[in-house]
Amino acid sequence: MTGKVRVELGPRSYFIHIGHGLMSRLGELVREAIPDLTRLLVVADAGAATWGEAALRALREAGLAAEVTTVPGGERCKTLAVAAAVWEACLDARLDRRSAIVAVGGGAAGDLAGFVAATYQRGIAFVQVPTTLLAMVDASVGGKVAINLPRAKNMVGAFHQPRLVVADLSTLSTLPDREYRSGLAEVVKHGMIRDRGLFQLLETEAQAVLDRDPEVMAGVVERNCRIKGAVVSADEREGGFRTVLNLGHTVGHAVEALAGRLERDGGPGDDGLLHGECVAIGLVAAARLSARSGVLAQPDLPERLETLLRRFGLPVRLPPGVDPAAVEAAMAYDKKATGGQLRWVLPVRIGQVQVTPYVLPEDVRAVLEELRS
Amino acid sequence: MTGKVRVELGPRSYFIHIGHGLMSRLGELVREAIPDLTRLLVVADAGAATWGEAALRALREAGLAAEVTTVPGGERCKTLAVAAAVWEACLDARLDRRSAIVAVGGGAAGDLAGFVAATYQRGIAFVQVPTTLLAMVDASVGGKVAINLPRAKNMVGAFHQPRLVVADLSTLSTLPDREYRSGLAEVVKHGMIRDRGLFQLLETEAQAVLDRDPEVMAGVVERNCRIKGAVVSADEREGGFRTVLNLGHTVGHAVEALAGRLERDGGPGDDGLLHGECVAIGLVAAARLSARSGVLAQPDLPERLETLLRRFGLPVRLPPGVDPAAVEAAMAYDKKATGGQLRWVLPVRIGQVQVTPYVLPEDVRAVLEELRS
Repeated sequence: MTGKVRVELGPRSYFIHIGHGLMSRLGELVREAIPDLTRLLVVADAGAATWGEAALRALREAGLAAEVTTVPGGERCKTLAVAAAVWEACLDARLDRRSAIVAVGGGAAGDLAGFVAATYQRGIAFVQVPTTLLAMVDASVGGKVAINLPRAKNMVGAFHQPRLVVADLSTLSTLPDREYRSGLAEVVKHGMIRDRGLFQLLETEAQAVLDRDPEVMAGVVERNCRIKGAVVSADEREGGFRTVLNLGHTVGHAVEALAGRLERDGGPGDDGLLHGECVAIGLVAAARLSARSGVLAQPDLPERLETLLRRFGLPVRLPPGVDPAAVEAAMAYDKKATGGQLRWVLPVRIGQVQVTPYVLPEDVRAVLEELRS
Repeated sequence: MTGKVRVELGPRSYFIHIGHGLMSRLGELVREAIPDLTRLLVVADAGAATWGEAALRALREAGLAAEVTTVPGGERCKTLAVAAAVWEACLDARLDRRSAIVAVGGGAAGDLAGFVAATYQRGIAFVQVPTTLLAMVDASVGGKVAINLPRAKNMVGAFHQPRLVVADLSTLSTLPDREYRSGLAEVVKHGMIRDRGLFQLLETEAQAVLDRDPEVMAGVVERNCRIKGAVVSADEREGGFRTVLNLGHTVGHAVEALAGRLERDGGPGDDGLLHGECVAIGLVAAARLSARSGVLAQPDLPERLETLLRRFGLPVRLPPGVDPAAVEAAMAYDKKATGGQLRWVLPVRIGQVQVTPYVLPEDVRAVLEELRS
């Protein structure tokens, strides 16, 4: 059972293939998507090293010249130092302008590998092979690639569309539980933005989703890719409409920056939150802010949202030690700020959001206070 | 006396302004080209620090919020370390998505600053203010931006068009003689590729050109920008036709890599050649290779070319210590190689070139042997 979603972007259109066991067909799919290919470099994150080897094998079995390089898992790979190492690996693998980079792993590895592909020889072809739920439903689709600066996330990057996305659902079976649940936050987000039916499905099929039921999840991932693909088609370079995808990310990114900071400053590493966990907190904040700002048209939304997120084992309050005032300060750094003004994405009802800069600072403060743990 | 050349690239079209004393009008020109601008960062190379200050002053006098940062002059600024410092400077200057970077200096500073602009927040606006002849007639037009990897030039970059180019010819008066002459190599190249009249003008007006006669040079620079602009319009991303601009660069880049290497390995620093000097040698090599390959239709071309380059004080033989075999090896690294094959640009007659992969290795070897000093 495999599905196929086309992301319409004129000459940069591409297919997302979704199904169980697709990895073995990777070589054939790559050949089809990029006909005149010379060589490939697989960039696999350490957490997906086995899948990186599987990808390499599949490419070579299809007669393609491929090498592999491994990068640290998670956000730690999104540094200039790792990018420099991968650029060197491109030279070692003798990649030229008709070569491609294949990212195998989570969203962070895809962001890093995509940035390297966007800039190596001024841009070469790029294939996403997401192996986490988060990467499948979000990061691997849309062409936003980036690395972090020490002070700010995703500050250096590009818009560089993949030529192909291959989501092998088999990879989900090896995903640690916490990472899987983290990915569900973006799934909930997509339902909130554009798909009331998806949100309701998550509510009614919560246990099957948590059990990673193959059939249910094939449908869920495909539905998510359709939503993300449609939004990206409408606004490739985030001129306006694509901003809706930032639902939950204004507060989410700020929490992520702070939770990461605790970790760096020598606190216990397990204080750090995963991206989806931060987004979950951000979604709750956005719902409450929407109510306070008079944007919300569906009064039961905040409670249904919190119930669903809790059901998925996701946090709905700020982590201990993260101060509301610090979150406010961190938001000022948010790259979404254009001309010093934040653009908030607020839910109107399940399946519909509104983008607005008109949010009162005291409302933001009050919501963050409510979320203090 | 100011001229204006439009580079036609659809929604990315822009103007090149050419004239004496334009720096004082920079603020007004920037406002016109980029209406809704928040803040600017001037990136000036150390060799053009005075012009960087002048640019900063002009921007501030026009009521724009601007900061300045200085980078090393020449190729030394095209490193990852310098890029990292400029990204940090962008954060310090609080640049957002509606901000711009203004490159003031030579081609290398423009390449570096352009790469930072192409990637900071996934791409912000970019203005080129070239202060060397080389940058005015070549690097500042066309949107090819890049930094170097230790092993290979221009290996990490992007296509990122400037929103405006301001070539203030007054800056040429402070340019060291050797740098000025180096810039003339690209001027000769443009004549060879597309403009027989320009080549003849350089022959008849050689002394005025060397004297930096304001009127003659205004015409020469404008004519060069028109040629470069027309080629770029026809092939923005170097899919094919733009390759003609690589005339003299296959051998030129290899010589540059080797001459630079001598310098790095602790040899005398003055062994290093400037970019234009390497291109001059590469032009001579291309002309001779064209004759040997049976492509040349104008027998007096190689001699006229060498005479003109010598008149401009440019080298027409390999520098002492650079071995023909080493040049051959270095060409293998050339990024123009796609699929392991070099695409040579060979002159047919003055004003016309041909792109071909069909060049015999023994002919290349013979030509390089002829050029041994």
